Amino acid sequence: MSSINKASNASGAAMTPPLDPAPLAHGGDLGAARKRFPGAPEPFLDLSAGINPQPYPVAELPSDVYTRLPQPAALADLAAIAAKAYGAPSAAHVVPAPGSQILVAQTAFLLARGRAAVLAPTYAEHGRVAELAGHNVVEVAEVGQLADARIAIVVNPNNPDGRIVAKDALLALADRLRRRGGLLVVDEAFMDVGPEGASLSDQAEYDNIVVLRSFGKFYGLAGLRLSFAIAAESVAARIAAALGPWPVSSAAVVVGAAALADTPWKDRTRIMLAEAALKLDTCLAKAGLEIVGGTSLFRLVRTKEAAQLFQHLGENGIMVRRFPEHPSWLRFGVPGGENEWQRLETALASCARG
Amino acid sequence: MSSINKASNASGAAMTPPLDPAPLAHGGDLGAARKRFPGAPEPFLDLSAGINPQPYPVAELPSDVYTRLPQPAALADLAAIAAKAYGAPSAAHVVPAPGSQILVAQTAFLLARGRAAVLAPTYAEHGRVAELAGHNVVEVAEVGQLADARIAIVVNPNNPDGRIVAKDALLALADRLRRRGGLLVVDEAFMDVGPEGASLSDQAEYDNIVVLRSFGKFYGLAGLRLSFAIAAESVAARIAAALGPWPVSSAAVVVGAAALADTPWKDRTRIMLAEAALKLDTCLAKAGLEIVGGTSLFRLVRTKEAAQLFQHLGENGIMVRRFPEHPSWLRFGVPGGENEWQRLETALASCARG
Repeated sequence: MSSINKASNASGAAMTPPLDPAPLAHGGDLGAARKRFPGAPEPFLDLSAGINPQPYPVAELPSDVYTRLPQPAALADLAAIAAKAYGAPSAAHVVPAPGSQILVAQTAFLLARGRAAVLAPTYAEHGRVAELAGHNVVEVAEVGQLADARIAIVVNPNNPDGRIVAKDALLALADRLRRRGGLLVVDEAFMDVGPEGASLSDQAEYDNIVVLRSFGKFYGLAGLRLSFAIAAESVAARIAAALGPWPVSSAAVVVGAAALADTPWKDRTRIMLAEAALKLDTCLAKAGLEIVGGTSLFRLVRTKEAAQLFQHLGENGIMVRRFPEHPSWLRFGVPGGENEWQRLETALASCARG
Repeated sequence: MSSINKASNASGAAMTPPLDPAPLAHGGDLGAARKRFPGAPEPFLDLSAGINPQPYPVAELPSDVYTRLPQPAALADLAAIAAKAYGAPSAAHVVPAPGSQILVAQTAFLLARGRAAVLAPTYAEHGRVAELAGHNVVEVAEVGQLADARIAIVVNPNNPDGRIVAKDALLALADRLRRRGGLLVVDEAFMDVGPEGASLSDQAEYDNIVVLRSFGKFYGLAGLRLSFAIAAESVAARIAAALGPWPVSSAAVVVGAAALADTPWKDRTRIMLAEAALKLDTCLAKAGLEIVGGTSLFRLVRTKEAAQLFQHLGENGIMVRRFPEHPSWLRFGVPGGENEWQRLETALASCARG
């Protein structure tokens, strides 16, 4: 990400950065963890990815789930259920896709090349993919600095610090962008655990707002690859057209439809995750760590000993997320069962003592 | 597709067509079939999609297949296995993706806008997506007419007529394109049942050739959503970067790796499908139908009575593929078990009599 320009204000001229399609480091890579910590106890406790450790229970799938193409009627049903779940105006405003990541790319590629401004620091794939799509990418620190972009990107709640941009501020930004032909992309990957009423999913009538919703994180089913773009019908139709007639697997259609319609599970899970996040705070605070932000799916810690703590946790078979550009940060996902909590507490305590 | 220009020769000027992101009709839509033929006997026999009716047997999947993000090491293994299976130079030349359809879009969007020429008639999504990506799309009838395009698209073997463009001709075309900065995209969706040595997968060192390989058709696992782009390392890296770090589901990684490595199954299946296609020819010929082409996964029939035959088969619960722009064509996939053959034979016989 070092090739992306950092603008201290919106008027700063931005150079076209050289193309660097090299992959970024992400959480959830067990192979890399095993390589780095060959002596660690197994199984690894993976707290590096911000994914709900208590997944939505997948019922037995129909026998033709792998053989048959996803059915258009089932895809339409899934879009309708997602529209209801996310508060979008209608199914025609919702596009199912195989993971948010591909939607990040589709959105960037659908626009003529121009200035792309990312509210930073944030999930690095936005800047990388916008760059790949030929946009002139700048990172800005304030929402106001996004207004003169062709494409303005806000992750809300933000990853990894949990910062939330108020809905009013985003709508005002969208208004200013619209006057100049600009598009607002709001990545709501963690909005399932965000404040009520903060989502822009119900504002998809505006033709310059695209909301991205992840499925895998909150539902704990990241291996399924499912996400949704929520946008004005004309924009949604363009994104859907680029993805083609069979955008997601038949398994994703079946499981996604069941999970998104299960309001009692969602309500229980929001509470369960909020409690888990509180417990995680207690656990981290006990170890003397400063918590600087987060959501119910992860907490961000700042410490001068981040490198040592990462190493110590790794040697104890616990993966957390580092940030090469912010060496004092560590992000912790929430543990699942009692055994996982125990392992984390023990490892943190032994580090605090050591 | 009616908005795409049809060029009778390569020098014909092509207008930028209006954007029409409306979805195209495709095979495999059971819901549409039930709606159109409400009185048909169930289950429908779906011969509309060109998918192997005897799928690769899916073993029980690991318990974390839905919860865990696809692992980078497993994705790398899948690319290596696919490289070997398809004869690509190395894993770095292979990009896993969630279905060919998304690769069609990625390839089109990665190029600066220009003239896109499609060898026609063929699978209509190529033209539609190239148009959506802003290219100026023309359909041409001869390989030689593709040489002055920025992006030349050949489906090989072709769908639906099975036409095969010789490897030498494609390499000569790629040479001519390269001199003008043009790219050759070869969609080898049905190459698993194509002639030996006809694939361009082993020519991926050329930096202006992109080969698309489908997984779901030959392996009978269309619901899984898996495909591969095979291209020069630099091009493959760009496509991979646009798809992001988790391009396919964990299930697709596991099943794809097992199936692609199973050479005995592939060899048996190629023979089984060739025999089934022969049997289908016999069956169609008995009904007095003219077979104008195809592959071992489908046969194309031309008849003045296509509309009536489509109707008659539909009323008997058998779906075949129609082509709105070629009203005399019908495409038949190969039936699976004995019962399916029986149903097709009976329905064809009663139509011939009727």
